[in-house]
Formats: sequence, structure tokens, C-alpha cells
Amino acid sequence: MFKKVNSGYHIPFIKMCMKVVKKIGIVGATGYTGVELLRLLVKHPDIEITYVTSRSNAGTRVDAMFPNLRGYIDLKFSDPTTDALAECDLVFFATPNGIAMKHTAQLIKSGTKVVDLAADFRIKDVKVWSKWYGMEHACPELLTEAVYGLPEINREFLKSASLVANPGCYPTSVILGLLPLIENNLVELDNIIADTKSGVSGAGKQANVATLFSEMGESFKAYGVAGHRHQPEISQILSLVSNQAVDFTFVPHLLPIIRGIHATIYSRTDADAASIQQLYEKKYENEPFVDVLAQGSHPETRNVKTSNMCQIAVHKSTETSRIVVLSVIDNLVKGAAGQAIQNMNIMFGFEETSALDRPALLP
Amino acid sequence: MFKKVNSGYHIPFIKMCMKVVKKIGIVGATGYTGVELLRLLVKHPDIEITYVTSRSNAGTRVDAMFPNLRGYIDLKFSDPTTDALAECDLVFFATPNGIAMKHTAQLIKSGTKVVDLAADFRIKDVKVWSKWYGMEHACPELLTEAVYGLPEINREFLKSASLVANPGCYPTSVILGLLPLIENNLVELDNIIADTKSGVSGAGKQANVATLFSEMGESFKAYGVAGHRHQPEISQILSLVSNQAVDFTFVPHLLPIIRGIHATIYSRTDADAASIQQLYEKKYENEPFVDVLAQGSHPETRNVKTSNMCQIAVHKSTETSRIVVLSVIDNLVKGAAGQAIQNMNIMFGFEETSALDRPALLP
Amino acid sequence: MFKKVNSGYHIPFIKMCMKVVKKIGIVGATGYTGVELLRLLVKHPDIEITYVTSRSNAGTRVDAMFPNLRGYIDLKFSDPTTDALAECDLVFFATPNGIAMKHTAQLIKSGTKVVDLAADFRIKDVKVWSKWYGMEHACPELLTEAVYGLPEINREFLKSASLVANPGCYPTSVILGLLPLIENNLVELDNIIADTKSGVSGAGKQANVATLFSEMGESFKAYGVAGHRHQPEISQILSLVSNQAVDFTFVPHLLPIIRGIHATIYSRTDADAASIQQLYEKKYENEPFVDVLAQGSHPETRNVKTSNMCQIAVHKSTETSRIVVLSVIDNLVKGAAGQAIQNMNIMFGFEETSALDRPALLP
Amino acid sequence: MFKKVNSGYHIPFIKMCMKVVKKIGIVGATGYTGVELLRLLVKHPDIEITYVTSRSNAGTRVDAMFPNLRGYIDLKFSDPTTDALAECDLVFFATPNGIAMKHTAQLIKSGTKVVDLAADFRIKDVKVWSKWYGMEHACPELLTEAVYGLPEINREFLKSASLVANPGCYPTSVILGLLPLIENNLVELDNIIADTKSGVSGAGKQANVATLFSEMGESFKAYGVAGHRHQPEISQILSLVSNQAVDFTFVPHLLPIIRGIHATIYSRTDADAASIQQLYEKKYENEPFVDVLAQGSHPETRNVKTSNMCQIAVHKSTETSRIVVLSVIDNLVKGAAGQAIQNMNIMFGFEETSALDRPALLP
Repeated sequence: MFKKVNSGYHIPFIKMCMKVVKKIGIVGATGYTGVELLRLLVKHPDIEITYVTSRSNAGTRVDAMFPNLRGYIDLKFSDPTTDALAECDLVFFATPNGIAMKHTAQLIKSGTKVVDLAADFRIKDVKVWSKWYGMEHACPELLTEAVYGLPEINREFLKSASLVANPGCYPTSVILGLLPLIENNLVELDNIIADTKSGVSGAGKQANVATLFSEMGESFKAYGVAGHRHQPEISQILSLVSNQAVDFTFVPHLLPIIRGIHATIYSRTDADAASIQQLYEKKYENEPFVDVLAQGSHPETRNVKTSNMCQIAVHKSTETSRIVVLSVIDNLVKGAAGQAIQNMNIMFGFEETSALDRPALLP
Repeated sequence: MFKKVNSGYHIPFIKMCMKVVKKIGIVGATGYTGVELLRLLVKHPDIEITYVTSRSNAGTRVDAMFPNLRGYIDLKFSDPTTDALAECDLVFFATPNGIAMKHTAQLIKSGTKVVDLAADFRIKDVKVWSKWYGMEHACPELLTEAVYGLPEINREFLKSASLVANPGCYPTSVILGLLPLIENNLVELDNIIADTKSGVSGAGKQANVATLFSEMGESFKAYGVAGHRHQPEISQILSLVSNQAVDFTFVPHLLPIIRGIHATIYSRTDADAASIQQLYEKKYENEPFVDVLAQGSHPETRNVKTSNMCQIAVHKSTETSRIVVLSVIDNLVKGAAGQAIQNMNIMFGFEETSALDRPALLP
Repeated sequence: MFKKVNSGYHIPFIKMCMKVVKKIGIVGATGYTGVELLRLLVKHPDIEITYVTSRSNAGTRVDAMFPNLRGYIDLKFSDPTTDALAECDLVFFATPNGIAMKHTAQLIKSGTKVVDLAADFRIKDVKVWSKWYGMEHACPELLTEAVYGLPEINREFLKSASLVANPGCYPTSVILGLLPLIENNLVELDNIIADTKSGVSGAGKQANVATLFSEMGESFKAYGVAGHRHQPEISQILSLVSNQAVDFTFVPHLLPIIRGIHATIYSRTDADAASIQQLYEKKYENEPFVDVLAQGSHPETRNVKTSNMCQIAVHKSTETSRIVVLSVIDNLVKGAAGQAIQNMNIMFGFEETSALDRPALLP
Repeated sequence: MFKKVNSGYHIPFIKMCMKVVKKIGIVGATGYTGVELLRLLVKHPDIEITYVTSRSNAGTRVDAMFPNLRGYIDLKFSDPTTDALAECDLVFFATPNGIAMKHTAQLIKSGTKVVDLAADFRIKDVKVWSKWYGMEHACPELLTEAVYGLPEINREFLKSASLVANPGCYPTSVILGLLPLIENNLVELDNIIADTKSGVSGAGKQANVATLFSEMGESFKAYGVAGHRHQPEISQILSLVSNQAVDFTFVPHLLPIIRGIHATIYSRTDADAASIQQLYEKKYENEPFVDVLAQGSHPETRNVKTSNMCQIAVHKSTETSRIVVLSVIDNLVKGAAGQAIQNMNIMFGFEETSALDRPALLP
């Protein structure tokens, strides 16, 4: 059944014998974010996946559901209990919104760190959160403590964080694309547009007519033009960074691809092309996972497919004040599981790029 | 709302004014077979769609669910009643298996013709049917009366049929591909293989994890190798035509395309290439919807996308007895809605190609 | 070979016998625009395709290159000569830029009407044209005479036109999306953005690494951000309509689909949602091929796939001045061949919707 | 430009400082096989890529052509010279057929090992080779020396090989699927069929109308039914293994996916299901890259996407003699670059799984 263990090819026994590896739990590991965490973590040198949960699939082997993991993980899905979770050093919640907040307080009390890949701790203002997510918050007192897990903004806070709100996929691509401009107050803050496009895996793995192959294939559409939950998340960060209100227009679209986000960001600026380019390069020169392309480049989403990289290109017209920023990520990696692992690496003091330092897949 | 009617552009008023048009009902019109019936029928000169049903969407405008039909149909989905159905001249059942058989007896009694696009009347042996479909048959007495709606075999019977079992999508492609060989007893009947590949729309429009875009995209797999319901359907016809038992191997696969079936059929024969080719051309020369390509051709599924055509190419090796037949159809047209309309045309004595005589879409 | 003619199923002989049908030539019919013209025209009741050219494929049967047309067209590709073209009543140029302008003067002199699906006659200012298309114009004297073939703007002029410049695909979607706003001077003319996305067929059928399946599949990118030829085409029309300069930002992207354009258009306005919606509905109420959806709708490109329809939805925030217009077309139909036929229908006084009045394909 | 080197994130400096790393050259690195070699090799602990060639792109940075490699490789493409190649410890030829054979003799003389990913050394009989590849062989004397690089057959020979013929993609999937049956003489050797389906990347990265996105998308077809070069390659191995002539039917098809091969293999056998399953499990129990699934499974190509694994499932009917074997690989990994690296690992005595031991990508 799990012959690869016997033949010794895949499972890094050495790390299992070491005492220092951290025990990792994953709650809700049957979705796309969950399997992506597993795919990346099985090769992480400093951790051991000890507990993988799914209420509806308890008892099923993980590699029976995800045959790409055969030979890499010898666990079954468990029905989650807080006690068992509390034995982990860190728990990833790859669950729908509203689940993590029910377990987090107790876990943190037990000394278990939490990274929530859902939205429970992303918005600081509990009223705004409730309005957009349609429920009461179970532990509003933790909202202040939660660190927004975008390392490019919050690396220092992440080092000592117990609770990390992993950013949304769109927000990651848009905020990284805008950060140098906003920090330096270079664009019209009441005139920013992010026209974003996401692969279908961003919609999750629930049975749903709207995301069937025959519905999504050979077609393209906008959705949520009237309002999308990632709008207040982005606005919150942009306002925080700029110390001003931001009138931010956010229009998401669904792409007939599995993975990838492309944000096309528009604003106007008085700054010239060269100095803006310099600003971006300076801002991100030490960032392992933000790559600023030459001005005028057109990053493709496949440039970063399967990788934790965000590629950014700036286009500034010489004739007008128009600035266009292009930003691409893999929504399941830098937009979810990869960034969660980057956050974990920082929280535990591991090499920040551990398990993430691989080139993207092309073609 | 339905302005196109007023501006007179799309709805053929003339046919509405004529007395002779037939009233058509469609039960279960929210699936892919249903919308394909609607797409084709709205331009049919001799019929009027009077009744379109969907239990779960009763009251919704048809064109609200299918925006491609805006301007072409001014109906709402109704909750189906047998009385209302009985006012139609013909009812198409585009329902899951097991629905049509509950209504058919009464409809036929009322003089309403029935074309079932599901499998309720495809298998003559009720025990075989029950085994494969996992339920009791509601009206086994109608199985003899039902005509298997493959015009290339049963055109004469269809002219006077009240109840037509519209063939399965795979069976249509495979039977048409094999017919000349089987009729002439030219191949090893215990050594026939059909390796078939279908687009995802064949799996229907139900919410289902397995047919999500992110599950089906960029992948390919076989399914049902141990047994598929279309195997006994095909075997029944091949045995009937050959008057012998047929050991027929059927392996279906799922293609990451929306529409299209490609059957690759293998057997062995003593006949030579030229005479086989001649046989196919002769057999189908007067068939409006079977097109025999030059020997050695490779039909692509897109050659027939959106059309009711079946394209067939024969490959006979000169060195061995191996024969390979390639057969392509659009699973939603010749494999479902188009063939159903072809059957209706024959049943009503309309021009057989009415509403179906359009070139395929390429690219 | 062309057996369908004999069996009488597909070719409308009747129209061939009539004296009044117009003779149509297509130059450069081997590309995607060409085959789309053929697909639509073979069922047009008032014309006969008499001459189909391709220098590199002269002598090849048209249906050997396009097997979807088997049974619908009994012609071979010819090497084009101006004399033979002059025998047509109308010639479509489905050629690369720079070809039509070499033949047009002589054809018009001979009384043959011309519809150019390329860009030779779209830009009125010959200097602007030369700058963007990188060549000298062969007949600048015809630029004034040429009518820009967007019926929603120029229907009256088209009725008597001899030379029609068929609009670009992006311009069609963007101009129709903006027209009611620009005509009524309701938006900030120095702050309009069109973020457009096109299927790959828009890039044509030339052998090209960049548009290979393995390059385009599972990816998405912007291109031509620094400048695209459709920008001056759109600006010219918007300025003409508004009688003012327009600062128009145009960013095209490539979608991994074959057919479809989605334009997401941004501006700001003081007008309220209801009055804008009314304006759009009023503007287009008699247009056969522009369909205004309910406010807040999200048209999908597949809603219009294979059809000549443009679907438009307006989104106006109640809280800010932001307006977002969504506009979808099939780039090969309303964006090219379909619109060319619509123009031909107007030029010849045919029913404007002839050969175009079919619902879109879904799924 | 290559800032990641400075920040030390991606390039493993340590291995560069070690004396023992092998110097690797890649000829023709601009195709899909080439970039896949690069993607995998940049993280290989025991080698250094020192020389990457492309005649037409000499001088271009490798990561300018392949932006997924930014930060992982700091080389430009070189114009290949045999002298420079001879300084490598091993050279991969990722070139069209007919190139490697011109350089190999001299390289081997210089002590440089060669792995040819093309077909120059796959067929032992030079007449057969010339017939199928349409050219004279440049060094027939090396054909005996060349080892067919399927480790599951030739591991021992590979350990001391100087010249390795990396197997074709289809042959890898088909031979691994048939090996236990053929070795044990369990199937009818005159009645074997492989119905194979490949992703489009298998057709390479040349500019070609037939593999454009708009040609391949939403369609499916067979090709080369009359004869394909991989037929004699497979037959040669099957005959060698069985010591008998094999009448082997091979029909390839093109899938609208980028990566993946699915072979559906048919034959007849007297053996029972359980013993066959046992045979497969036994045969492959120590193979790191062949994974036998439970009987009756349906492997999907995505199970192995991006990985070097071959997944196999056996289906044996209880009622008939029919046996169906399903075998999936990633054509660019186990079907090309991954297997080439596996061969290199064996040739140099590295850990066989080095650089290849990663789970597949899902979804």
C-alpha cells in the first residue's frame, strides 16, 4: 500500500528522527488549499505533518483522495478535536470562513500557533467583517493580536506572532503591486482601479454548477462588480499604508485556467517612469518572493505557476499621467498555501524560503 | 425585457400564425441536453415550443437561465403536469433516467408522442435494464413498442413511432462506426474494442466535484472500465444486426473539452481496404448526417462541433488484419438533442434535416 | 466527394436558380475570419459564394481545409486576380493589413463593393494610419469615402457605401459599451479605461510560437500595454462622437479561449444608475445585435459565442462616481465576419439579420 | 538583473564550491524538453549547468526566454561548439532528430557522456531507423553501444553507459504498462493494442499551425494511424523482452492539455486478475518511479503531472479473457527530461531520485 516508505525513496526519515522538527496540523485538508499545503510541506526539512483533518472523510487515507501524494504521506484524515490539534506546534486552517475563529482562542492558549488561510482574522474592524462575511465573529478580541500575514509588510511582527491571518489571493497580488506607490504617496488615492482575473481553483472544490468544466470552459466573465470581500481587505491595507482614505475600485473576473491571478492596476501619477521603476526595484530587492521585471514587461500567470513568486511589471506612459501595474501570482501558492508556509517559516525562525524555493512550471 | 419580440427580429411570427405547427414540450430543460434542444428548436420552421418544464426552476424565465436564448424564447419554466404535457403533440424528456417511464404510458394514450433522451427505453430486456440502471422499470410493456431512435437503422419504424428511445451518445458514435462491418459480417465478433473519449458535457450539469473545471482541466482519465451502461446498449444493437453474440469491449474516457465524442474502434478483418471503404460509402451515401471521409483520414471532434453530423474514417492496414475505425460526433447534437430532433422530423414527416442543416463551428 | 449535393440535403439549389442572388468573393479565406465568413454565408438566402481565394492554397478544395464545410461548399481556392474579383458583386477581404488597399480602387471602379475586414480603411488620418501600421497607404484618397462599418453608428451611410472598413474586434466591443455615455457627455473624457480580454483566435492562424496551445493554455497575460493599434481606432470614434479629445487607456489581454472578447470599461460620472440604464436601453432598443442586460448583470463571453450579438451590462455604484460597463462579443462574429455580413446586408438592402439570426452556443 | 544571486536565496552556492559536482551541458535548450531539464536540474545537488546552447538564441539570457527560471540560472544561450561541449561531464541533447548523432562520436572519445532525448540511438536496426526517420545515420557503429534508457529494463547497463538513448514518451508509458505481461508471456502477442493520448507539448515548440491554441483547443483527434515512429521503437523492446515477434497496433491521439500521456492497452490473457496484479506489484516494488495502483483504479494524467512517476492500473474482466492496462506519465518528465535525469543519476552513481523526488501537482 505505502510501499515507497519501505523502499525508502520518498519519505525523509532523517528529519523524522530529529527531535527538533515541528509538528504541523492541517484542518480541512480536502480542498485545493489543503492539498497544496500538503504538496509543499511533505518536502519541508524542518516539520512533520502529524495531523490532517476532514470531518467528512475521516478514516480515508490522504493519498487515496490525492493520488499525487502517494509515497509522500502515510496518514489518514481525522475527525478534528481541539485536544489533538493542541498537540501540534502549529495548525493551518484551510477551512471555509467561520471555522478557524471557533478553535483559535483555545489553541493559542495551549501554545499552538495558528495560521488561518480563510478570512476570519483579516479585517480589523469587526463590524466591517460581519457585514461582509454575514456572521457574528466568535473571538473579536483576537483581531488586534492577529498579524496580517503579508511578509513584505509585516515580517517583523510575524516573527513573534501566534496568530496569522493569511491574506486573500487577490489582496496579495494587488497590494504587492501597489505598495511602492502607496507608501510614497505617488498616485491619486481616489482613482485606483484593480481589474483582477483569477483561475477557477480560487473558487474552491465544493460541488457547484457555476464552476463545472462545461460552465467555465471557453468562457470568461466578471463577477461581484457590486462588491467583493477582498475590496475591504485591500482598502484596509492601502489606507493603513497611506494613512489616508482610498477610493479603490475592485473588479474580479474568472479565468478558464486552474491556477493563476493577474491583476491589472490603474491609477495616475506625476512621477516619471524611471524613478517609479527604481522605487519598485529598491522596495523589493531583498524580498525572496517578489520579482520586479524590466519596465514594459508583460508577466504571464504561468511564469509563477506552482511557485511562491509574485512577478510585477510597471508601465508608465510618457505622454500621460496614466500608470499601469501588472502583478501575477499563483493563487494557490503566494495567494494561499505558499504564503502560509512562508509565514510559518518566519514564525518558527526557519529559512524563509524553505519548501518554497523551486522554479515555476513552464509550460 | 423581451424587446426582440417587439422589434420583430428573432421570433418567426409567421410560423406562429400557421395552424399546422406542432406543439412541443420539453421536460427537464435545464440541463445541457435541454438547452441544446432549445437552441436548435427555436429556429425550426414547423414547430412551436409551448411548454418547458423544470420542477426546481418553475417561474424562472428560460432566457434568464440561458442568456444565449434572449430574444428567441418568451417562456418560463413550468412545474410539469401530465395534463399540460398531454396538450403537446410531442414531448422530449431531457431528464435523468427513470423519469420518462413514469409519464409515457399516459402521454401515449392521450396521443402525445414521446422522445426520451434518457435511457428508459433503450434496452429491450427489462432484466438487463434493471441490472444496469438499478431500478424497477415502470412500464416494461412499452419496451417492445419503443423504437430505438437511430435513423440509420430504424428510419422506417420511426415514421410511425409513438415512443422513441433516443440512443446514448457513445452508442451513436460506435454503432455508426461499426454498422457496415457488422451487417456484412466482416470482423471478428469476439474481438471488437471501442476506446471512446467524451467531452465533459456528457456528464451533465449536476453540481459534482468530479466534473469541476479544476478537476477536469489539464487532465485525462478512463472511467467505468469494469462496466458502463452503454456497453449493453451497443452490444444489443450489434447482436441484433449481426444475429450473433458479440464480445464487445468498451472503455470510455473523459476529455477536457465541453463537446465531442471520438470513438477509436479496433477489430480484425480479412477484407481489403478498398472494398471496406466502398462498403462504408455505399452504406451511408444517402444519409444526411453520416459523412464517410477518405480512407486514412483523421476526423477531429471539432469537425462536427455544434452539428448533427457523424464523420467516419476507416484505416485498414495492408500488412495485417487490423482495422481501425474513427468516428466523431458532437455528443450534445448527434449524440442527444440533434438526433432527437432528427427523430421528431421523421416522426412528423418533416424534412429530416430541418433545424439541423448547419455547418459545424470551426474553430 | 461532394455527395451531399447529389442527395440534395445541404446546398440550397433554389437560390442558385434565382437570378437575384449576389455573387460574393472572399479574398484570403484560409484564416479564422475567412472560414467564419464561409460558415455563415453558406446559409445566406440572398447570396452565392462564387470565388474564394488563397494564393498558397490555390487548387485545394475549400472543404479539404475546413472539414466543417463538407457538403456546404463545392469550390476550390483560387489564386486571386482582380478581373475575377471584379465579377463579384461584393468582395470581402479577410487578408492581413495592407492587401485590400491594393485592389480596392480598381474593384470599386468596376462596380464591385468592398468590405475590408482588415485595418486598411479604419483610420481617417493617413499619417496616424502609417505610424501604427508601418507602411505607406496605397490609396489614401479612398479613406474619406470608406464608411466605418459599425451599423449602430453608421447605418445610414452604409446603405449607399461602396467601401466599408469593418471595425476591429476590440473597438466593436468598447465603442458599443461606451456609446451612450459618450454621446451624452456623461463621463470624464480624460479618464476612461478599457481593460479588454480576447480569445486567441483574434491573433489569427499564422504559425507562431506565441500562440501555440502549450504557450497559451493555462496562462493569461496582458500585451501591448505601451500601445495597440486599436487604441487610435477607438479614440478616433470616441472623439468623433463626443466632438472632444478623449484620453483613453486601452490594455488588451489574451484569454485561453478560442472565441470571445470581454471589455471591462471604467470611468466616472455624475449621472445616477437608473438614468444611465435607461439611456442604454433606449439607445439600443431597435438594434438587432446589441442586447442591454439588467443593471448589475455579468455577461459571460459564452452568452454570445458563435452569434453576432453584443451583450452589455452597466454597473453604477451608488456610493461613488465610479461606473463600470461590461461588454461581450464573439470576436470572430460581431468582431469580424458577422459584422461584415451585417454590413453587406445593409449595403444590399437585405434583411439586416439574414444569416445572423441564430442563438449563441451554450455550453 | 540577477539579484536573487546576491540575496543568496536561490542558487545553491555550496554545491558550486564543492569540487565533485559534474558539469552538465544542454544542447537545444529552447524547446519544452530543454526547459524541463533546466527546471529540474537547477535544484540538483550534484551537478552544475555550465553550458546551454541554442544556435538561434545565442547571447540571450536563458531566463529572458524562460521567466520561470529567473533567479535560478545565470547563463546565456551559447552557439554550440564540440570543444565546449567536450568540457562537460555529460551533455543532454534536447534537439530535433538527427543532431545528436553528429556530435556523439567525438564527445564520447573525449570522455563526455551523452544522453540523447531525441531518437537517434533508440532503434538498433539502422535500416529500420532510416526508413522511419528519413535520413542516413551518421554513426551506425554507436547503435550497439547505446543503452536504451529505460531504467526499469536496463539499470545495470546504464551504470556504465557512455551513450544513452532516452526512450520516447509513448514508448515509456506503453512498455512499462506491458512489461510484466510480456516478460511472463501472458498475453496474445499478435493481438496487442495501445490506444495512446498525449498532451500537445509532446509536439514541441516549433511554430506550427496544427498546434496553435485555436486548432487544438476544444477538439481531439487521432493521428498517424497508418504508422508512427514510436511503433517500431515499442515493438523492438517488446520483441526483445518476449523473444518473439509481436503484432502491435499503436494509435496515438492528441489531447487538449499541455502535459500528460494516457495509454490504454488492450490484449487477451488466460491468467486471472489476482495473479496479474501480484505480478505487477512484484515487478515494480523496488522501482522508485513506477507505482502500481489497486486493481480497477483509473489513474488520471494529473496524478503524475510535473513528476517522474508512472502510474499503472490493471483491469482484468472475470467473464472474458480481455485485459486492459492503464498507464499514465507526464510526457515531459518520465517521458523525457525526468527520465533523462534519472538516467544521468544512474550513470554517475548519484541517488537515483535526486532532483526528481517531488509529488505531482494537483490540481
